[in-house]
Amino acid sequence: MDPLDAAMKTCGADAFVHYATGEDADMRYLTRFVMHDSFVFFKRRRQRGTIIVPQMEAERASRESTTAVMTRTQAGLPDILKKEKDPWKAIALMISGQAGKTVLVSPAFPAVLLRALEEHTQVIVDDGTMEKVRAKKSPAEIRLMQDVQRKTERAMALGISLIRHATVRKGVLYHDGTPLTSERVRIAMHKQLMDDGCRAVETIISCGEDTAYPHIIGSGPLKPHEPIVIDTFPRDETTGYYADMTRTVSKGEPDARITEMYEAVREAQQVGVARIRAGVSGADPYTAVVDYFKDRGYESDTRGFIHNLGHGVGLQVHELPTIGPSGVALGAGSVVTVEPGLYYPGIGGVRLEDIGVVRARQFVDFTRFEETLIV
Amino acid sequence: MDPLDAAMKTCGADAFVHYATGEDADMRYLTRFVMHDSFVFFKRRRQRGTIIVPQMEAERASRESTTAVMTRTQAGLPDILKKEKDPWKAIALMISGQAGKTVLVSPAFPAVLLRALEEHTQVIVDDGTMEKVRAKKSPAEIRLMQDVQRKTERAMALGISLIRHATVRKGVLYHDGTPLTSERVRIAMHKQLMDDGCRAVETIISCGEDTAYPHIIGSGPLKPHEPIVIDTFPRDETTGYYADMTRTVSKGEPDARITEMYEAVREAQQVGVARIRAGVSGADPYTAVVDYFKDRGYESDTRGFIHNLGHGVGLQVHELPTIGPSGVALGAGSVVTVEPGLYYPGIGGVRLEDIGVVRARQFVDFTRFEETLIV
Repeated sequence: MDPLDAAMKTCGADAFVHYATGEDADMRYLTRFVMHDSFVFFKRRRQRGTIIVPQMEAERASRESTTAVMTRTQAGLPDILKKEKDPWKAIALMISGQAGKTVLVSPAFPAVLLRALEEHTQVIVDDGTMEKVRAKKSPAEIRLMQDVQRKTERAMALGISLIRHATVRKGVLYHDGTPLTSERVRIAMHKQLMDDGCRAVETIISCGEDTAYPHIIGSGPLKPHEPIVIDTFPRDETTGYYADMTRTVSKGEPDARITEMYEAVREAQQVGVARIRAGVSGADPYTAVVDYFKDRGYESDTRGFIHNLGHGVGLQVHELPTIGPSGVALGAGSVVTVEPGLYYPGIGGVRLEDIGVVRARQFVDFTRFEETLIV
Repeated sequence: MDPLDAAMKTCGADAFVHYATGEDADMRYLTRFVMHDSFVFFKRRRQRGTIIVPQMEAERASRESTTAVMTRTQAGLPDILKKEKDPWKAIALMISGQAGKTVLVSPAFPAVLLRALEEHTQVIVDDGTMEKVRAKKSPAEIRLMQDVQRKTERAMALGISLIRHATVRKGVLYHDGTPLTSERVRIAMHKQLMDDGCRAVETIISCGEDTAYPHIIGSGPLKPHEPIVIDTFPRDETTGYYADMTRTVSKGEPDARITEMYEAVREAQQVGVARIRAGVSGADPYTAVVDYFKDRGYESDTRGFIHNLGHGVGLQVHELPTIGPSGVALGAGSVVTVEPGLYYPGIGGVRLEDIGVVRARQFVDFTRFEETLIV
């Protein structure tokens, strides 16, 4: 049975309703229609989904959406607005007119619209049916994500190549006569991704002490003998699917503690990968990595290994499943990252991140990119 | 009084709570902290706002956020999770522990968290305090947006220059020996914007019949003697503020009906601009443009002028105020677009869009870019 139909049947709902922009992952999955303003998706039980859009989007929606398309006028909004001036109450009336007496809404359904809808309709909040559906990728989705990953690796190769071929002057990397900054590496990678039909934002190119903070994106001149963390998560401009990968490099030999951390992180990645398969709890590979780090003298607290081992990737860069303490059984077909890292303020950080698919018997890595610290 | 304090006072709430990613405009405005996963913002009455973030984001948050910063551990989440396994219920318990007995939540607060919070707390849904606060820009915000607009105009100049300098072969524009496509123009503009520290997505470069549908982004070779609509809405990569502008051009003379539409749209823009000032309803300039088009024989229904005249711009590309039938009194300091358009399937479309600020006595246009159809 269609998972939304099953969820509706369980709670006795007549329809499922979502309200979001087309950038919302559930909305994109349900409609494949990208619109920058929020719009209504509804699906009555055993029927096809429908979106309600402004007149000016109707033609584009009928070309691009995988759903049926209705204009706001067809859904009665102009008549409703003659009597109901509050726009949220008007949208709620429009929804209840289409969706029936008992409605299942998405977890992210906005509170203001929920309250307005409750005036007319019994409203049940879904506990994440679509998020769970999205966690299992179809073969077609996996191909799309492998394709994004190939382009991501091309960008990573470019970024590392700029660092590798840089010259060193007064403790700073130079390229083409000017300092090689985080920003220059980031923009070069983003432009190549653009040529490849992908969009990347906020690629991390952090250097030195900044690498001890996993999400500082980095700025200014890059330096030799320091860890440089490159973490990029581009998405295909057309399909919206993400890839995600991280490498840590150093131009010339870094502090011995960084080299040791790098070796530990590289082995930890293999420890994690070896534990991933369908049916295993997402907590299991995480705990294995924590234990491995502990054996090597690295803690997993406010320093050391301070984040989850991995996360699902798809139409969101972070989605289900979780490979961390709160993880539940991994399902076959989930695309996940495996990204151990070690972070020590005052020393620096190291992270290595691959992406691949959870299969019945093993993790199949999509990533085909070397792990080499010194470049 | 602080607008959130005023809203809390009105409804007797102890605190205001928001839950969203840092890409959410309200969250960005309240915190200036960009995080890709959702996090909690709360503000008790007459106190400073606080965000609750994972340990791994704490250092970055303390550097980048304008709020106080608390880790999830400091907010008690690990202890709560020992007893409460449902993550939404656990977050709700964490929130109610910090925020008090009566909580005002943002309109976009997710339904699943609202329902969990209602188990412990009286929850009132705010009717858009932050959206209204964001509609009035400070002088500093206006300077940031003017700066983005300058860079947007540089990108527009590049896009039009590619079209102007194209050659025509077999009914198709050529540049550097290969067909000049929508995609090439878009990527060239996006790359230049990237060099200028801005991020643009889905810039519309539509040609010919596609221009009759305002949000079709366009693909494939551009053609001479056809309308080409260029609509771009870049944002500053660092600050998140948007600009927005549209020009329509034709390589060589287009159909006479397009030229007539162009003249009507250009005058309509002046008609609209002349009516915009603080205190005037957003419906007023819209109606003036509808009337003007009517006098020239153009309808404003499912064809002709099919969208609003303008919208606010800021941390969202579409925000308050609305310059359209549902508009209310415009406030001084709002940054808005003025973008009349005419759309006729089978013929094509024309749109011209400027951006500027609503002042007490007039609309002050930020846009300093010529309006010329034939290039």
